[in-house]
Amino acid sequence: MYKVKIKRMKIDEHMSALDLVREMDASGVFCAGSLARALDIFVEMVSDPDVKVFLGIAGALVPAGLGGLFADLIREGFVDVIVSTGANITHDIIEAFGEHHQRGISGNDSELRSQGINRIYDAYVSDKAFMTFEERIQQIFRDIDVEKRKGGITVSELMTEIGKRLEDENSFVKAAADKGVSIFCPAITDSILGLQAWLFSQLNPLKIDVLEDLHKIIGLAYENKKSGAIILGGGFPKNHILQTMLITGRGFDYAIQITLDRPESGGLSGATLSEACSWGKLKSDAKSVDVIADVTIAFPLLVAAAKEKLKG
Amino acid sequence: MYKVKIKRMKIDEHMSALDLVREMDASGVFCAGSLARALDIFVEMVSDPDVKVFLGIAGALVPAGLGGLFADLIREGFVDVIVSTGANITHDIIEAFGEHHQRGISGNDSELRSQGINRIYDAYVSDKAFMTFEERIQQIFRDIDVEKRKGGITVSELMTEIGKRLEDENSFVKAAADKGVSIFCPAITDSILGLQAWLFSQLNPLKIDVLEDLHKIIGLAYENKKSGAIILGGGFPKNHILQTMLITGRGFDYAIQITLDRPESGGLSGATLSEACSWGKLKSDAKSVDVIADVTIAFPLLVAAAKEKLKG
Amino acid sequence: MYKVKIKRMKIDEHMSALDLVREMDASGVFCAGSLARALDIFVEMVSDPDVKVFLGIAGALVPAGLGGLFADLIREGFVDVIVSTGANITHDIIEAFGEHHQRGISGNDSELRSQGINRIYDAYVSDKAFMTFEERIQQIFRDIDVEKRKGGITVSELMTEIGKRLEDENSFVKAAADKGVSIFCPAITDSILGLQAWLFSQLNPLKIDVLEDLHKIIGLAYENKKSGAIILGGGFPKNHILQTMLITGRGFDYAIQITLDRPESGGLSGATLSEACSWGKLKSDAKSVDVIADVTIAFPLLVAAAKEKLKG
Amino acid sequence: MYKVKIKRMKIDEHMSALDLVREMDASGVFCAGSLARALDIFVEMVSDPDVKVFLGIAGALVPAGLGGLFADLIREGFVDVIVSTGANITHDIIEAFGEHHQRGISGNDSELRSQGINRIYDAYVSDKAFMTFEERIQQIFRDIDVEKRKGGITVSELMTEIGKRLEDENSFVKAAADKGVSIFCPAITDSILGLQAWLFSQLNPLKIDVLEDLHKIIGLAYENKKSGAIILGGGFPKNHILQTMLITGRGFDYAIQITLDRPESGGLSGATLSEACSWGKLKSDAKSVDVIADVTIAFPLLVAAAKEKLKG
Repeated sequence: MYKVKIKRMKIDEHMSALDLVREMDASGVFCAGSLARALDIFVEMVSDPDVKVFLGIAGALVPAGLGGLFADLIREGFVDVIVSTGANITHDIIEAFGEHHQRGISGNDSELRSQGINRIYDAYVSDKAFMTFEERIQQIFRDIDVEKRKGGITVSELMTEIGKRLEDENSFVKAAADKGVSIFCPAITDSILGLQAWLFSQLNPLKIDVLEDLHKIIGLAYENKKSGAIILGGGFPKNHILQTMLITGRGFDYAIQITLDRPESGGLSGATLSEACSWGKLKSDAKSVDVIADVTIAFPLLVAAAKEKLKG
Repeated sequence: MYKVKIKRMKIDEHMSALDLVREMDASGVFCAGSLARALDIFVEMVSDPDVKVFLGIAGALVPAGLGGLFADLIREGFVDVIVSTGANITHDIIEAFGEHHQRGISGNDSELRSQGINRIYDAYVSDKAFMTFEERIQQIFRDIDVEKRKGGITVSELMTEIGKRLEDENSFVKAAADKGVSIFCPAITDSILGLQAWLFSQLNPLKIDVLEDLHKIIGLAYENKKSGAIILGGGFPKNHILQTMLITGRGFDYAIQITLDRPESGGLSGATLSEACSWGKLKSDAKSVDVIADVTIAFPLLVAAAKEKLKG
Repeated sequence: MYKVKIKRMKIDEHMSALDLVREMDASGVFCAGSLARALDIFVEMVSDPDVKVFLGIAGALVPAGLGGLFADLIREGFVDVIVSTGANITHDIIEAFGEHHQRGISGNDSELRSQGINRIYDAYVSDKAFMTFEERIQQIFRDIDVEKRKGGITVSELMTEIGKRLEDENSFVKAAADKGVSIFCPAITDSILGLQAWLFSQLNPLKIDVLEDLHKIIGLAYENKKSGAIILGGGFPKNHILQTMLITGRGFDYAIQITLDRPESGGLSGATLSEACSWGKLKSDAKSVDVIADVTIAFPLLVAAAKEKLKG
Repeated sequence: MYKVKIKRMKIDEHMSALDLVREMDASGVFCAGSLARALDIFVEMVSDPDVKVFLGIAGALVPAGLGGLFADLIREGFVDVIVSTGANITHDIIEAFGEHHQRGISGNDSELRSQGINRIYDAYVSDKAFMTFEERIQQIFRDIDVEKRKGGITVSELMTEIGKRLEDENSFVKAAADKGVSIFCPAITDSILGLQAWLFSQLNPLKIDVLEDLHKIIGLAYENKKSGAIILGGGFPKNHILQTMLITGRGFDYAIQITLDRPESGGLSGATLSEACSWGKLKSDAKSVDVIADVTIAFPLLVAAAKEKLKG
């Protein structure tokens, strides 16, 4: 037990992101305190070369403008493995194809439909963007080596093949392909990208091999000296990252989750990281923290502070 | 605009589940009001033979004791298509294998680990249960027709094959197999069942065909005159049910969701059903309701009231 | 540690409210489990004549149709002390004056304003209702004994004086007056009733004595052999009930809270009842439960089941 | 309708608080977008001399280290009127008396009680701190002019009298006294300060006049050309600020709220600010934003960015 005095935060006009999180650390309690602990854990895990860092991406984070942030984390070597929802992958590719997400649109949902506009809370994406996506992604499917397709292609291979064909440096799918970082998406068919793959498979011999990717991600979890997890928004990426340790018999050494989901209804999205210790998914002495916050506020702040701290 | 007086609920000692929801309907506002509207929608969709009902199951609902309720809904013909997380399928099969979930266990998460007990909020499942699961499910994998395995088996076929080999009438996987109801799980590899499938595939030629199941569920969505969705707890089952309509070009006629997730962080789990109208996933004139409640309280109450009302 | 098997709920068409909660008890986990524990605690505390029961009412529960339920609890002797927000008192009196709350009204908030309609989520109350309230409550203020006013009237006395002048049996303010149950509202001026009291005081010698009510509620907490708390929706009523024990040096023996607020942001509304043990507000061995649920669903279900169980 | 492209946030190691919120503004959606809009509204309202700014403080924000931030906002002239829970006032005075809040303490709630430690989520305050508080505040009560006490003292006067006797520049109660900013607390008896006032009144002629403060706050709301509200954490401070406009017939021109409470259960804490337009509490064309976030993260970030922006 280390008893510590809670200091009053001092907030002035000369504060960097790191200054701000340091004030939260001086206070050290409630959500601000958990964000400050997340900074320490983040910095420790990304600066230790022995730690492989798994990033889980759920919720509409790419439409919210976080895709470039993920791309940067990959390019700067902070992240070694990605598990993403199919939706975030789809929206990242849509942006890489030159389409974009919009805001500031009014009208009720029926009116939006009649205008061909799809709503994601207060972000919007047009039917036209999906048409561009269809045209370009079908072309990419045609371009991908047929030999591979015969035996079945894994989702992570598919992500690499797609990423190689993108030109937008802000795309995390491209960044991952460039850097050799694997993107896993066990529920690929649960997305518009998956629907496009299915459309392609109606006339072409595409098979997706999902078991092989399980082999691969477990291998990535197994070969590490130490492992860290950054889990944004829960969902299946959270489980998919954590469950690797049921096979390796190890457990993550570091873990951060940021979510607004709550634990009482028993779903994994809202479960505490401590709970994962009972499963052996986290080591009993893992450094972990649950940050109860919206990812779009907390994660940019965390990353800005971490980069500043790492710069030294 | 139909202006209606909010009546004071009258709660006495002679109330059936239906009486209770009728009082909530008399009030008609806040979460109680939304539950009452859910009852009307539920009853209308399950009693119309032209409506195919899709049930989405996310969150640890089987460990919480709802597995038998799902089995009953299937057996009674209320539900035509299931999309479930792999975890709920795994836990349903664990129970069908004679293992069970427990409560009333104390100890911190590290202590639980050393005792081989895995925690799901305040539910618990032992390592022994997972060992039984491994032994029995590997046997089932061996039993399943090899021919099918060569070309790849779909998850829904796998569910049928497993369900046929279970003996517990309370298992929803068995009930679905018995009644010819398809269970879809696009993220099968994101579960302990998926890990077992992978283990099996290391020495055996198991391939899982995920694209074919997309074909099948879209077909099920396409062939209906009308469609209804009951979405418990969000997660990928929610998206997987709703996205079928992006291909069919129709949209659900009825939809109920019960969740504690919130919409402001943009994730689909917490998104309103109205938002789905902008995508065409729901018809603009669909009857739909968002019930902000824990599934373990609201869904049993809803089903009890619905069965009583349907009895007439 | 009492290890218990989680039973699958059995939901059929013949279920009373009590049957339903018993199934939730058989499962016993997540929010359903907490509701089942709340039933046991509720029944134990209201059936023990040595227990004085304090009810805290926050959130717009009267507009939602729960006012009559509170009145019944008072009349049936289940509740001995009330702490309510001024809003719930105001809305209860509005209904007792023959005005009512409405639902089913559409239009955005600016349109509502231009029509003189005030919104409470999806409940509505007209400016006309507040005009009736003003006229009638000012008359009641004039009727109340002037002598008392000179030295200052406590809020609980004011509530009794108002309650005696109401005729609606469904009013909890009237029920409390009839049964000699005190209603406390430390933040009376934070309500439309309070604004009316202020208007009256501009031309009349009304003084409100808030310290005397503190004396009275502490006395009520002190004289009990045992104490129980039912806290709906957090807010200051929660604190006001619990803080009495800081003076008595005892602590509640029983406590139930139902809320959707969460604990991580540190506010008392979302704090666990366990936290109250650290303050001595609850006894260390108190029987208490946090039910994470909307009050409008969970409380009617709880009360219906409790009445049925008490009937025996 | 102003359709705007959502830009990808660019997060690097050289970011000030303002840079960060500007990136959130470039994205502009979800919670980050709402925080960015809050910045614009905050800066506009505090830099316009015609706007009187009301600050509502609920939740344990002083124990979390935000007391000094409030003090600074007062001293810098950003805030003109305060409505606070009694708890935040109590804890501010405790810190001004040289006692402090702590973190890093372990032990369950019963153990904490036996050690005389009171828990506020993961912040802690000792019984000793409350003993110091009792001793010092009773002395202050004795010091306050007896004449005033006879006719009754308002809470805002009491706050000024206490504030004048404090020496800690970081105390917001002292800052308010120094700057002539009124602190209102309609539920003063719902706090430990209130309990101390009651104790004092047992042997001394202290009377608290709550109606007079209503007069005063309405006057402050009435005399403004324009009004702004910053509402942290909901609770009665939110209502108390907003309800002033029911009397003035004006409505706030600006409003920001930061909360994790949700609207569906109908309580005012979680209600949208738009709802307040239907009551006339906000003008129909008010600039307002709901930020769904924990105050301890979002408010320091907002204030740091605002101060930087105001510096120019």
